[in-house]
Amino acid sequence: MRDVAVIGVGINKWGELWEKSLRDIFVEAALLAMDDAGVDHIDSLYVGSMTPGLFVGQEHLASLLADYLGQCPIPAARVESACASGGLAVRMGWMEVAAGVSDIVMVGGVEKMLDVDGAGATFALASAADQEWECYNGVTFPGLYAMIANAYQAKHNIPFNTFRKQLAHVAVKNHANGLLNPNAQFRSKVSLEQVMNSTLIADPLRLLDCSPITDGAAAAILCPLDMAKTKFKNHPLIAIIGSGAATDTLALADREDITYLKATEVAAERAYKMAGMKPEDIDFAEVHDCFTIAEMCVTEALGFFEVGKGGEAAMAGVTARDGAKPINPSGGLKSKGHPVGATGAAQVVEIAHQLRGDADKRQLQKARVGLAQNMGGSGGSTIVHIFKAV
Amino acid sequence: MRDVAVIGVGINKWGELWEKSLRDIFVEAALLAMDDAGVDHIDSLYVGSMTPGLFVGQEHLASLLADYLGQCPIPAARVESACASGGLAVRMGWMEVAAGVSDIVMVGGVEKMLDVDGAGATFALASAADQEWECYNGVTFPGLYAMIANAYQAKHNIPFNTFRKQLAHVAVKNHANGLLNPNAQFRSKVSLEQVMNSTLIADPLRLLDCSPITDGAAAAILCPLDMAKTKFKNHPLIAIIGSGAATDTLALADREDITYLKATEVAAERAYKMAGMKPEDIDFAEVHDCFTIAEMCVTEALGFFEVGKGGEAAMAGVTARDGAKPINPSGGLKSKGHPVGATGAAQVVEIAHQLRGDADKRQLQKARVGLAQNMGGSGGSTIVHIFKAV
Repeated sequence: MRDVAVIGVGINKWGELWEKSLRDIFVEAALLAMDDAGVDHIDSLYVGSMTPGLFVGQEHLASLLADYLGQCPIPAARVESACASGGLAVRMGWMEVAAGVSDIVMVGGVEKMLDVDGAGATFALASAADQEWECYNGVTFPGLYAMIANAYQAKHNIPFNTFRKQLAHVAVKNHANGLLNPNAQFRSKVSLEQVMNSTLIADPLRLLDCSPITDGAAAAILCPLDMAKTKFKNHPLIAIIGSGAATDTLALADREDITYLKATEVAAERAYKMAGMKPEDIDFAEVHDCFTIAEMCVTEALGFFEVGKGGEAAMAGVTARDGAKPINPSGGLKSKGHPVGATGAAQVVEIAHQLRGDADKRQLQKARVGLAQNMGGSGGSTIVHIFKAV
Repeated sequence: MRDVAVIGVGINKWGELWEKSLRDIFVEAALLAMDDAGVDHIDSLYVGSMTPGLFVGQEHLASLLADYLGQCPIPAARVESACASGGLAVRMGWMEVAAGVSDIVMVGGVEKMLDVDGAGATFALASAADQEWECYNGVTFPGLYAMIANAYQAKHNIPFNTFRKQLAHVAVKNHANGLLNPNAQFRSKVSLEQVMNSTLIADPLRLLDCSPITDGAAAAILCPLDMAKTKFKNHPLIAIIGSGAATDTLALADREDITYLKATEVAAERAYKMAGMKPEDIDFAEVHDCFTIAEMCVTEALGFFEVGKGGEAAMAGVTARDGAKPINPSGGLKSKGHPVGATGAAQVVEIAHQLRGDADKRQLQKARVGLAQNMGGSGGSTIVHIFKAV
């Protein structure tokens, strides 16, 4: 297998993009990535998108986007693993380059979520849960993550007020980061009090514990590391040194412990093993904070913090931009937005900028090794990648 | 890259499976494939499914199916390229084994299409066309293929009655084959007259020119060829010797010539090149006869017949089971059924049985090299694989 490099990344301004269609949004980010890499042709395309069928009635998406990028007849594949679809696209592209099947591969993601009303979006997103055993009984994602949060608080015996503050700290930190990200959907500072007094959605989760509904896309260009060294010298070199994927049951009811994200643990183990690294070797990470409780559980399953201590770490500032283990310097899903299929690809964009040292005001002091963790549903799938400046 | 073998295949009885859910249908075929291969564990899963979101409100499908197969936490990915989703799953699995990422990989496909009414199914299927430029104006797939048929007849200057008979011959031949396939949805012999007098759907296409709406699944197990030689000896060895994928515009209006399937030509060229073969080296093929006109165009783009002569070949019996180039010995989409995401995987099932020599009453006399061609939409994507008994 060949070593694989990231030679270009692109992302557009995320938000409510009423004047742009699904294809416009993706092509915009894709062209930015091609421009950043300095290529006008790609050999293959992987697009992560969760449910363009339910959102805008369009499947067969990868061919459509290859066409609108002017790249037909290249092979193009849409891949889906709910909210981890973008990360899955990265993994497929990595595999195709590593295998030697293609050289220049675009991996990206897109979702156009605002062309349906609130009920439509809730229904579309709920298709990432178990339709027959969860959704059919009326539960949707805020409810599922609220169950995780309540079980977490009980299991770790954290006083409610302390737990509520821990959750809020995640939101406050991610909004502080997003404030520095020109592409973020919500560039607004929020205070602990604002989070804790925001509208109750599913107890204990409040409005500002939840990531938003977003239109957006992101893309990256991969090629063999050897080729990157000789042909693509416009940026410092970045290698993908670890890739791991894993699954868990969709239905929470089928899990032994709903407070622990088993698929994240296993995917991370696989990525660490490939990279020859441990959690302490990771300088920073972009993780899947679809709800504040998710970021706490994820940082534990990645091995950054002891089980039950993710909230304490956030509260103590460990995960802040100037902390020992910065999490979501981009603003995360919470502030940057969460166009579900695009999220995993956007993590690569942020990590590339940090590793290159061109993340502007968000630039971390220590950024040699970055990890991306992208999660589907309530943890039914997880993709982890580790990137290194080489 | 490692050579890849097919060591097991499985398919269930296709049709209107009211008493089975999406997950039941897939697991049934998947367990048959595992049993056929003699494995109780897989390292990774690829599932092709076009739009489980629009059909039954369930995305995040690969994790769900990995769970119901008892295989969590293996990596599992759903891949989508409209009606070519099953072929895409085969290609992804081939790549993963070839790359050396995994050894035992399941590739399969599933679609549960009958839980929505006719309008719902038509809308779901239309999502494989260009939503903004085709569907929005009211055209659906019978209409698109009717346009192709009319343009084909005009371009090749074929008298209408002759052309109409050519189309009918494709349906008659595929129903004759499907009669011998116990898993086919429609095991009924049809006559030329029945096809030509069936209800008009979109002129010149009639009801018996169209593949049906179907519930069904199919799966295959892949592993490195070297491992197959030493560890899996229950069947004659089958190798994947060629894999090609290509895209074209979704919208017919954007093509230079709507009567020629460019993506099929390019995907086939790539597969032939990898296999070191020419069209004349292929003993038989399973191709994408979603409409009778499609089979004619496909057999031309694959290089089996001259452009404009696909219909003549069908009429002359060349593509019959006892002809020089048997096409769709399984009964094809027309008779076997077309659960869209499963179709590409089912082609592998038929080819494996033919190459092993255990296709029962459908067994072809000469079956050493078989080709599978799986197509998305009106030709916006195509996946071609070539298999050889080794």
